[in-house]
Amino acid sequence: MKRILILGAGKSATALIHYLLEHAEQYDWHVVVGDRDQSIAAQKIDGNPRGTAIAFDVNDADLCAKCVQESDIVVSVLPAQFHLRVAEDCLRFGKHIITPSYVKANELALDAAFKEAGLLFMGELGLDPGIDHMSLMQLIGEVKAFGGEMTAIRSFTGALIAPESDTNPWHYKFTWAPMNVVLAGQGTARYLRNGSPQYVPYNRLFDQIESYEVPETGTFEAYANRDSLPYLDTYHIEGVPTFIRGTLRFQGYCKAWNALVRLGLTDNTFTIPDADQLSWAALMDSYLPPFNRDKAIDQRTADFLQLPLSSPIIDQLRWLGLFSDTKIKTKAGSPAQILHDLLVEKWVFQPEDRDMIVMLHVVDYSLNGKSYRKSSSLTLKGDAKDTAISYTVGLPMAIMTKLILLDKIDLTGVHIPIQEQVYTPLLEELKQFDIEFKEQLEEIS
Amino acid sequence: MKRILILGAGKSATALIHYLLEHAEQYDWHVVVGDRDQSIAAQKIDGNPRGTAIAFDVNDADLCAKCVQESDIVVSVLPAQFHLRVAEDCLRFGKHIITPSYVKANELALDAAFKEAGLLFMGELGLDPGIDHMSLMQLIGEVKAFGGEMTAIRSFTGALIAPESDTNPWHYKFTWAPMNVVLAGQGTARYLRNGSPQYVPYNRLFDQIESYEVPETGTFEAYANRDSLPYLDTYHIEGVPTFIRGTLRFQGYCKAWNALVRLGLTDNTFTIPDADQLSWAALMDSYLPPFNRDKAIDQRTADFLQLPLSSPIIDQLRWLGLFSDTKIKTKAGSPAQILHDLLVEKWVFQPEDRDMIVMLHVVDYSLNGKSYRKSSSLTLKGDAKDTAISYTVGLPMAIMTKLILLDKIDLTGVHIPIQEQVYTPLLEELKQFDIEFKEQLEEIS
Repeated sequence: MKRILILGAGKSATALIHYLLEHAEQYDWHVVVGDRDQSIAAQKIDGNPRGTAIAFDVNDADLCAKCVQESDIVVSVLPAQFHLRVAEDCLRFGKHIITPSYVKANELALDAAFKEAGLLFMGELGLDPGIDHMSLMQLIGEVKAFGGEMTAIRSFTGALIAPESDTNPWHYKFTWAPMNVVLAGQGTARYLRNGSPQYVPYNRLFDQIESYEVPETGTFEAYANRDSLPYLDTYHIEGVPTFIRGTLRFQGYCKAWNALVRLGLTDNTFTIPDADQLSWAALMDSYLPPFNRDKAIDQRTADFLQLPLSSPIIDQLRWLGLFSDTKIKTKAGSPAQILHDLLVEKWVFQPEDRDMIVMLHVVDYSLNGKSYRKSSSLTLKGDAKDTAISYTVGLPMAIMTKLILLDKIDLTGVHIPIQEQVYTPLLEELKQFDIEFKEQLEEIS
Repeated sequence: MKRILILGAGKSATALIHYLLEHAEQYDWHVVVGDRDQSIAAQKIDGNPRGTAIAFDVNDADLCAKCVQESDIVVSVLPAQFHLRVAEDCLRFGKHIITPSYVKANELALDAAFKEAGLLFMGELGLDPGIDHMSLMQLIGEVKAFGGEMTAIRSFTGALIAPESDTNPWHYKFTWAPMNVVLAGQGTARYLRNGSPQYVPYNRLFDQIESYEVPETGTFEAYANRDSLPYLDTYHIEGVPTFIRGTLRFQGYCKAWNALVRLGLTDNTFTIPDADQLSWAALMDSYLPPFNRDKAIDQRTADFLQLPLSSPIIDQLRWLGLFSDTKIKTKAGSPAQILHDLLVEKWVFQPEDRDMIVMLHVVDYSLNGKSYRKSSSLTLKGDAKDTAISYTVGLPMAIMTKLILLDKIDLTGVHIPIQEQVYTPLLEELKQFDIEFKEQLEEIS
């Protein structure tokens, strides 16, 4: 019997745990799920005799070592900063480890040690990062295989709300870490366009957007992710003149978010004390330039943004309650924290809501003197049992766990899933869960 | 004989050292000047038998302790983060200490210990902070003394170039830490306006400016300093509905700087590798939205900023060389670092240049049913011997050293110079150095 240790039983572990338990009898696995809150782990195991829920605290070094030692493979869905500690125990006791998080420099530094020990550290094996790497590598591989010369590669992901659950003018609800959404893009984004780097500072990141059509799903806005350039090397596509990774939102989101940025409501560098003594309208008054204070706050906001009062953006701000006399609930916090607390309430994902993952790769290439655009897209909605994000984050790790335990993977060291031996079987099996890309090809001028 | 220890012999120490040496014979002082580079200290002492230059490294704990122990008072003009270490030695050996830097929380925490030891830690005793505190407290004290009810207090300082040395369209040269100028204002500024806080995020700090006239000197632009609100308490002016501290620039500077902010050139959060392979025009191309790339770079910049090509702002950017094919000199660095390296060259303060300090306080108050505006301003130019900034930073510390050694000061603990017993004699003596405020009073409607 093989023992699988899953650390962390939060939302992104549900599909992972279920998959492994469902296959446990067939492959003779036992699945140990550790969480600070043992009851959450127990709930996900739901009495399956192939599963054991334990209380797990990553700061308890002895417990962590013991758990790792008793397992054959470890899947860490703990907060990203804890993977390193677990990985060090994996090295010590000779275990493979899988995580869904971006591989950090201090994890990559373990590459030689993992290689030497004949072990695998597979990171970035969720949705984004994860399925994006695998599906794009497969697409690039296809184009390379028939000799197409790639001129542009664009790769976008959005964790969104399904249209049937879209009940607000932002067309967005939180299906993922809210603070990451509030702070998204601070700094400067960088990608490659026509052979030159393109820099987009935060003050116009949500303004300088592009529209993309996803077949059978709709039209989306894309803003650039922080730094696309390192992926030229990762994906072995050096020399492609245009390359961008980005995030998808429904139409109308980005320009309205840009209004919040311009107002200053996403700043996280200072604290507003006694915020709960203020109404939202009073906070807005503090942010607006001090002109025409006799005018209504919505009109002043529209004037500041150089928009008509009837603009949908003003409606979006109004829907959030920013012009209202309602008191702010946050006692004290940065503007970003105060906005976060409001949005968590306004953009709440209800139990009956369905989320939707949209991923789109667009590759332009030339072949025999003609130019083509090949698009590959994934649309997946959550169902009554689980969210699309849980499926798409958890199932890649679950399938990978199986592949490793069945000795199908011939990799050691620290990796992300860009190898054919990984993405081919993984993407193939994901199709059984409706995680399937649709391709389109058109000739372009 | 009293021994005075001056730590740091950089630019801001020149007037300080000279004053103390000039008075050393009269008061029987010996002045020890320590610097990492002993020759700089020796140069400033210039053979005066009342002075001794030593090599000083603040990281050499034994040396630091020995120097402090042998002195009667310490003036630290080291980089601000080192004052704490020196202050701890001052506590240990029973010495007073003076610094020109903002008092940090960890220094303020020594207040009780300094009090108990009967010692004084006087911080913020330079120009800004320093002379601004003292002159504003004096002005506020006057208005309070005759019963005026203050409705607005505004306090601005600019370390500028004298008009006769103004040779560029920015009307600015570096007379002070350049990187502080490049990074100025990142985050959100906060002040008080008509009883409400006013927030100004970085993306419009240099756009949301006000004009102020300084008698016999000119018209200046003011942008808000980071956080004015804590000074309501410091200055004992709680209840005043409008209060702002800010920075002065010559007209035309702020809007042009705002163009650099909008472009993204002041961001310090990521590194551009191989920057020295790029021309400035190529860097600008990377920052401009990717439209109309067949147009010239200056025209595209003007379009992006929604300015005519003939705008003075475009001329200012052109003068910096941002549209040129000249290669960037910085090998690799953040945009802010690359901009810093360019500006250090373009805005160089030449040996023959004269700097100029401008300080302006504007206090509105009502008295007997009438409203008045009292302005107090300082204009000081550097001369052939030293810069205005060196005089205004160094002389307050020098005079304070004298006052302490002559037992004129009855203060213990950690302080900034807001006490009448400090600012009255200090501002009086500063007049001998042409550091003298001129007042204006007008009735306002």
